Amino acid sequence: MIISKNLKIDTKDNFQIIDITKEINNLLNNLDISNGILNIFSKHSTTAIVINENESGLLNDFKKSIGNLIPEHDNYKHDLIDNNAAAHLKSFLLSSSETIPINNNKLDLGTWQSIFFIELDGPRKNRNIKVTVIGE
Amino acid sequence: MIISKNLKIDTKDNFQIIDITKEINNLLNNLDISNGILNIFSKHSTTAIVINENESGLLNDFKKSIGNLIPEHDNYKHDLIDNNAAAHLKSFLLSSSETIPINNNKLDLGTWQSIFFIELDGPRKNRNIKVTVIGE
Amino acid sequence: MIISKNLKIDTKDNFQIIDITKEINNLLNNLDISNGILNIFSKHSTTAIVINENESGLLNDFKKSIGNLIPEHDNYKHDLIDNNAAAHLKSFLLSSSETIPINNNKLDLGTWQSIFFIELDGPRKNRNIKVTVIGE
Repeated sequence: MIISKNLKIDTKDNFQIIDITKEINNLLNNLDISNGILNIFSKHSTTAIVINENESGLLNDFKKSIGNLIPEHDNYKHDLIDNNAAAHLKSFLLSSSETIPINNNKLDLGTWQSIFFIELDGPRKNRNIKVTVIGE
Repeated sequence: MIISKNLKIDTKDNFQIIDITKEINNLLNNLDISNGILNIFSKHSTTAIVINENESGLLNDFKKSIGNLIPEHDNYKHDLIDNNAAAHLKSFLLSSSETIPINNNKLDLGTWQSIFFIELDGPRKNRNIKVTVIGE
Repeated sequence: MIISKNLKIDTKDNFQIIDITKEINNLLNNLDISNGILNIFSKHSTTAIVINENESGLLNDFKKSIGNLIPEHDNYKHDLIDNNAAAHLKSFLLSSSETIPINNNKLDLGTWQSIFFIELDGPRKNRNIKVTVIGE
């Protein structure tokens, strides 16, 4: 069985980390999947999908850490076209997607794992996430 | 339906970013997949597969940015064996693969997304990319 | 055919890179998969799954390189709660999973590719890796 769903997100800040674990699990609620995988793909090149612990101090540390690795401005050529090179460069380092196992209609995540959508160039309306489930 | 294809690429520069979106979509042309996923896997540890915007200034910014994060030489032990440690270390940070949704025989990418094969230790002949489609 | 398996690993060091290629291929031994994909997912947010060359000098270079990018301590807020922010931040940059093609009951890796489980906050007992095979 292969099922596709779309998830739309409005973001509020320039840099925002949004826990989408519940929304993704809700998409699985009415399906009958005992075993399989779920692919979460963000259709943007200034966002990312990552998995980690939902602890507010840590999420703040991550924002600082990725900002240290990719300075906001550094004579980027792309800033002359569209003033968001740093957002793209962070997205290059992170990833547009994650593929996660499913067990009994739920994401088979560890105790301390949440799925995050990261806005790197917000605020934006209608950020578009495609979710594809392959399961039995 | 599960289908595998191989894509061979000759690279011309030491560091080269190659847009392979069209080649991947061409592999889907003769198939009949309305819904599914496509996995692109590079069979090398000095290359990467990434998704981002195909704007020449940005691709130049990315080359500089990853070069700032991973210096070309830094007393790497692997340089004593094979003088390409920096290429491997960039590949560790990026990824060997991407998994992307399919919609009606086409990659379901966003408007500003392209798929890039990144050569980190070229030029090389016959870089080998395996594409696996799982769909209905 | 969709098959799930669990792999448990005990780690011995704070930072440890473990080649799990053989263990993963062993999981495929008794199956009958000519074509497909295999998803390896670590159920922890202070570990990573990466693919690269198994050369001891290079693995040492990688440990140093990721340590340069993410300092062990840097007034991280998460260190006040659980003294392992750097391990989480390394895991954010790397990835919790990899998805790899299968060819004739074996991972279709390149000559110089191995799959590594990376412990970033060990030693720990019973690190839990979920392996999902989708194939024909």
